[in-house]
Amino acid sequence: MAAQLDERLERYADLAVRVGANVQPGQMLFVTALHVSHAPLVRAVARAAYRAGARYVDALYVDDHVKRAMVELGPDEALSYSPGWVVERFEAMAGNANVAITGNPEPGLLADLDGARVGRARMQAAIEVAIRQLQEQTVNWTGLAFPTEGWAQQVFGEPDLERLWEAVAFCTRLDEADPVEAWKAHVTRLTARTESLNALQLDRLVFRGPGTDLTVGLLPTSRFVAAGATTAGGIPFVPNLPTEEVFTTPDARRTEGVVTSTKPLAVAGNVVRGLAITFEGGRAVGVEADEGAEVIRSQLASHEDANRLGEVALVDGTSRVGQTGLTFFDTLYDENAACHVAYGSAIPVGHTEGSDPDGVNAAPIHTDFMIGGPEVDVDGVTSDGRIVPILREDAWQLPS
Amino acid sequence: MAAQLDERLERYADLAVRVGANVQPGQMLFVTALHVSHAPLVRAVARAAYRAGARYVDALYVDDHVKRAMVELGPDEALSYSPGWVVERFEAMAGNANVAITGNPEPGLLADLDGARVGRARMQAAIEVAIRQLQEQTVNWTGLAFPTEGWAQQVFGEPDLERLWEAVAFCTRLDEADPVEAWKAHVTRLTARTESLNALQLDRLVFRGPGTDLTVGLLPTSRFVAAGATTAGGIPFVPNLPTEEVFTTPDARRTEGVVTSTKPLAVAGNVVRGLAITFEGGRAVGVEADEGAEVIRSQLASHEDANRLGEVALVDGTSRVGQTGLTFFDTLYDENAACHVAYGSAIPVGHTEGSDPDGVNAAPIHTDFMIGGPEVDVDGVTSDGRIVPILREDAWQLPS
Repeated sequence: MAAQLDERLERYADLAVRVGANVQPGQMLFVTALHVSHAPLVRAVARAAYRAGARYVDALYVDDHVKRAMVELGPDEALSYSPGWVVERFEAMAGNANVAITGNPEPGLLADLDGARVGRARMQAAIEVAIRQLQEQTVNWTGLAFPTEGWAQQVFGEPDLERLWEAVAFCTRLDEADPVEAWKAHVTRLTARTESLNALQLDRLVFRGPGTDLTVGLLPTSRFVAAGATTAGGIPFVPNLPTEEVFTTPDARRTEGVVTSTKPLAVAGNVVRGLAITFEGGRAVGVEADEGAEVIRSQLASHEDANRLGEVALVDGTSRVGQTGLTFFDTLYDENAACHVAYGSAIPVGHTEGSDPDGVNAAPIHTDFMIGGPEVDVDGVTSDGRIVPILREDAWQLPS
Repeated sequence: MAAQLDERLERYADLAVRVGANVQPGQMLFVTALHVSHAPLVRAVARAAYRAGARYVDALYVDDHVKRAMVELGPDEALSYSPGWVVERFEAMAGNANVAITGNPEPGLLADLDGARVGRARMQAAIEVAIRQLQEQTVNWTGLAFPTEGWAQQVFGEPDLERLWEAVAFCTRLDEADPVEAWKAHVTRLTARTESLNALQLDRLVFRGPGTDLTVGLLPTSRFVAAGATTAGGIPFVPNLPTEEVFTTPDARRTEGVVTSTKPLAVAGNVVRGLAITFEGGRAVGVEADEGAEVIRSQLASHEDANRLGEVALVDGTSRVGQTGLTFFDTLYDENAACHVAYGSAIPVGHTEGSDPDGVNAAPIHTDFMIGGPEVDVDGVTSDGRIVPILREDAWQLPS
């Protein structure tokens, strides 16, 4: 059992290094883990990266308990402070590789604290560097999650680590005989979807379901993309393991209506449930939630454009994440179970050069939340008013 | 039990913040833990520091498993590389407070690797910043250890966490009703010893015991110091919790003879046992050990003056650490059980201004090893040849 786990861990780390970040010989690899319990994967990734020829592996553990101490007991000025070395570490990622490890055993750790302070507790200067690198495509990176008993407890209500590993292996195609080949085929299939969608030249997407009647306007330069990405220097990589979405940049000025989330959202140390947001003229003007509304409100108020969308993504019922039927309390997974939108910054690959800058959101935040599911129909509408069904009962309606 | 542990942990963290580093309102506190299992103390220290008025708490976890991957699989150039952000983090400590957490559950983690590569695996540029800060006395800092089951396994051969906590509480005076007052009294007692020693104006120290006949020459400017320190800006602090030593800077040119260590030494991922070093004209010219000699040889070769002494320290049988009779495999503890010397850099408070720079070691390394015990007699010799007994069968022979 221990040997089996070790072998699986090594294969998973190899997937992160060779398919996900695609670490090149002579590159530095930065590894950032969201929890000290992620140590076994951090170490396996370090070994895999040196085997792949990495020049140096720099590993860092984030500890949300220390953030909790800051939010609870620290001065106001501490909340948005970015230590110089954290900014420098982000800067050093340019031209190098980055692996982010998620799978938080304590997603609600900050839930009992002042939501406004929790929302303000972000290393703004460091995040701006990361967003700039995303725009300039200077980093080959990936995110993947590490199964721990704590995370299993969140997902299943019991620390069934083996069951969580099986779900993770299924979702990341680690259960395939040749995961690298399986990923190639998967990327090809998702890419075909982006070609179908882009050929339609849609003007907007419309989501209709219980508590949802949302129109998301697109730009003439919006471009659906998926799965695989490439750095400016030409290194292909897969930013998310798993990924099941095709996504694009919406026109930040043209979101209208109300949208109700279809899954809980783990964000900033809180689990937000029953989130409903009303949009007018592209801006969120009303936020309600059964739990955690204050954190969302605080994030939406953190920048003048934080209350506008920056991403809209389509996911159908063939999603392996969706097929598990689980809520993972981890955006990397949950966003790949269902259609979603994100408020905050657009992702540069989601629109072509020459986009109207007023329509592309640049707010230094990016929070995805899930709005799709079998009860939510999705249509595309062309600029001449033709309606194109895209999703019905989670089934993809386009030819590919 | 859990509640008792939590209360003890909070008191211990308070001791680190209020007595050890003596964090001042408005200071930043850096916390560096040597192992991810130190998280509970890291978090308690963060809370205590914010309560004491810290402006910001920056916590970092070192992971020797990632270092192991580097030594085993990485390129040569990686070994001595210091990431820019690590150097910047050290630089930022100037004017601020620092807490280092030890108590390594895996002190022999690197023992099966190439000893020469292990010895070279040091962040040289970062260490030089730390040594400069020590010289300039710009940081109020402390080191203390965190009891974990893994560390208890090392000490007792079984994961008896409660027994280790009791030993740690005894050694750090956390078992006293008022540990802050107990520390004041302890510092006063050790300071009286330094006054006795300094009044003698010794020319050299002589250690004689099984496998040991060592003369350590002192400088005219050597000054015995203990326990309490003060930053250049006037903040008093206690660098080590526990501390039982009085120490001084030897004349780096005047060490002669052979010395055999009286305790195992945990250093650089190895446990060195049975270490014997021969000195001629101030330099180590021969190194033998039952285990781990190569790591010591590699360190001694890392700089032209790494093979000279930089510290000599006296500890008697009243040491609480010594009284436990335990080997902790942690220098913070083991060096406080017995007389010791260190090769590498001198500690600036151990000599006065105007010292002959040729006699003060500045090599960017500092490794203590234990040479004292009940079988080792220690004498002082004055410049006119008078012999002053200092330790016999671990008993202090001076009036105070």
